[in-house]
Amino acid sequence: MLYRGRMKSRIEAVYRVRSDARSIAARAHAIAVEQSVEMPLDPIDDAYVLNEVVGRVDDIADRGGGMYDVRIGLAPVTTGFEAGQLLNMLFGNTSLQTDVTLIDAEFPEDLAKVFGGPNHGLQGLRARLKAKGALSSTALKPQGLPPAALAKLAGAIALGGIDVIKDDHGIADQQYSPFAERVPAVAEAVAKAAAQSGTPTLYMPSLNGNLDAIRRQIAVCRASGVAAMLVTPMLVGVAQFHTVVKENPDFIFMAHPSMAGVPIAPSFLLGKLFRLFGADATIFPNHGGRFGYTPEECRRLADFARREWPGIKPCVPVPAGGMSLDLVPGILEFYGTDVMLMVGGSLLSAGEKITEETARYAAAVRRAG
Amino acid sequence: MLYRGRMKSRIEAVYRVRSDARSIAARAHAIAVEQSVEMPLDPIDDAYVLNEVVGRVDDIADRGGGMYDVRIGLAPVTTGFEAGQLLNMLFGNTSLQTDVTLIDAEFPEDLAKVFGGPNHGLQGLRARLKAKGALSSTALKPQGLPPAALAKLAGAIALGGIDVIKDDHGIADQQYSPFAERVPAVAEAVAKAAAQSGTPTLYMPSLNGNLDAIRRQIAVCRASGVAAMLVTPMLVGVAQFHTVVKENPDFIFMAHPSMAGVPIAPSFLLGKLFRLFGADATIFPNHGGRFGYTPEECRRLADFARREWPGIKPCVPVPAGGMSLDLVPGILEFYGTDVMLMVGGSLLSAGEKITEETARYAAAVRRAG
Repeated sequence: MLYRGRMKSRIEAVYRVRSDARSIAARAHAIAVEQSVEMPLDPIDDAYVLNEVVGRVDDIADRGGGMYDVRIGLAPVTTGFEAGQLLNMLFGNTSLQTDVTLIDAEFPEDLAKVFGGPNHGLQGLRARLKAKGALSSTALKPQGLPPAALAKLAGAIALGGIDVIKDDHGIADQQYSPFAERVPAVAEAVAKAAAQSGTPTLYMPSLNGNLDAIRRQIAVCRASGVAAMLVTPMLVGVAQFHTVVKENPDFIFMAHPSMAGVPIAPSFLLGKLFRLFGADATIFPNHGGRFGYTPEECRRLADFARREWPGIKPCVPVPAGGMSLDLVPGILEFYGTDVMLMVGGSLLSAGEKITEETARYAAAVRRAG
Repeated sequence: MLYRGRMKSRIEAVYRVRSDARSIAARAHAIAVEQSVEMPLDPIDDAYVLNEVVGRVDDIADRGGGMYDVRIGLAPVTTGFEAGQLLNMLFGNTSLQTDVTLIDAEFPEDLAKVFGGPNHGLQGLRARLKAKGALSSTALKPQGLPPAALAKLAGAIALGGIDVIKDDHGIADQQYSPFAERVPAVAEAVAKAAAQSGTPTLYMPSLNGNLDAIRRQIAVCRASGVAAMLVTPMLVGVAQFHTVVKENPDFIFMAHPSMAGVPIAPSFLLGKLFRLFGADATIFPNHGGRFGYTPEECRRLADFARREWPGIKPCVPVPAGGMSLDLVPGILEFYGTDVMLMVGGSLLSAGEKITEETARYAAAVRRAG
């Protein structure tokens, strides 16, 4: 007989469902079934499956306005303790239904430890950057430039004393700027500028492709003295993301939200789940920008990323998207100083004065932090 | 100087945007920028980037009711000719915005050939199954059962002469039914039953985990005489999906829509894009079931999957989700016979009579086809 294990407690997933009072109990039951055995229960005569595997409706709360929060207990053993399958069990088929959003999940402590969270987190990132308060970052753009042009630009930015320069998430392994040529060139320019500025600026290249390609890219990073990178978990697959986090405990990983437009609350997906899978920092569209997240959702996301979680290090929230320098004080007031700011396009608009503009930005963040 | 290539034609992506007449031109331009260089154009002084890389608004069509179809030309070179990056360029950041859906894209013929589409497609699958018309399939459930119980169930179903038995997408590599024990057991039971029934039933195990795990699972399949499988591209990552399709040209791949609840029209994502990446068959929630797809969207999906596409084999549409035997004639009338039906839970409810019920189902499909 195989081990058909049980954990003391369940994953508690919370779904926000649009329904009427008459239908919500049946709808909640249907979600519990959809996210576990996905078949009528009548023909199931196996006690283990019925008691331990089938999802369990633990609570239904009326949120008003025809919305209900349905809390469903999912069996940890169904996840196979693997990131992709965890996401599958949380929301795979239900993601296709239009009346429901996944807004949160709580994980048993032993399950969370299996995934493990960030290698470094907020404190580790600060230590690497020799920084104390809020952190500053920007994105290297535009794609289409050859390595030498991007390296020159990155050097000019790094000279301004910024903490982090990440590749734009659209920069991948294109013919006009192959990863293996771009990363050493940019890394060298950033290192040279950092030695001059005194700020140990981290360059984070964007990983992309399948797991083989990602591993080759990490080898390029190691050879170039780069130990921090950007990953898009919803594009490369959360399993690939979690794998490279585990394989490279000395590396810092920043998560990017590209393709995260699924009906999952951004606070949960980008704040809690990406943290669980190992994001040291997580980029998200700030409220008031061009992406329509509410202030409440952003606050909740930052809280999920940073709050006390036994055995899981805090992850740095990185509000981004249409930010400019004059917004810095307000952002720091909103998020506090356990944060990294991301100013992109508006910095690049400074042209010849990009080093000075970066210095002004980095100083503003440091002063406030 | 590096090669900064150009293809004669662009990827023509079509976005459906909620807007007013006054704002739509600016909004269309913003999407073209977001999905290419993602920065203001003013600071860009590189002619290649401006002419070849920046997205181009090619058309704006008023669809009425405050909806517009915006056609944007994206440069193929930005995709790096890699599946994940193609998705990133089509819709990465824009997936986070709530006023826009990706409804279609047309690909230059040379780009489509790089991806290549299905290894076998409709005709190959029919040849393997020695079938002529419509095909029948079901899902092996529930997860939680040990390998021997699933094998027994699969054998009883196969004895009824069904064409395809796939793992439920929730069946992964869990302790209660490890892939390496389950697949040989189920494969043997299905092969034995197939020899008896005369129908060469295909068993399709569900691939999951990272690329290493998927490759190990494919080795298990090969050792068990299994050459067909189920993959969830949005969970394992489209790059992983496309990689295993290319690495295993003798295998048949069926795509599952789990986690496909992004703001991309299902017809495009499940019908056209999964086909481009190599799905021989694509499962989708049929209209009238529990997932809310419209008949029009299902018809369009089936059309995208099967229509003439130079160099790309047709993919079999597989309507599923809450189907029962009495719906078979209506489904065949709707989709025609270039289709595979998927009846799941309602078949499993037959209990002891599952072989007879499967035979009735398979015969009904064969008769109609």
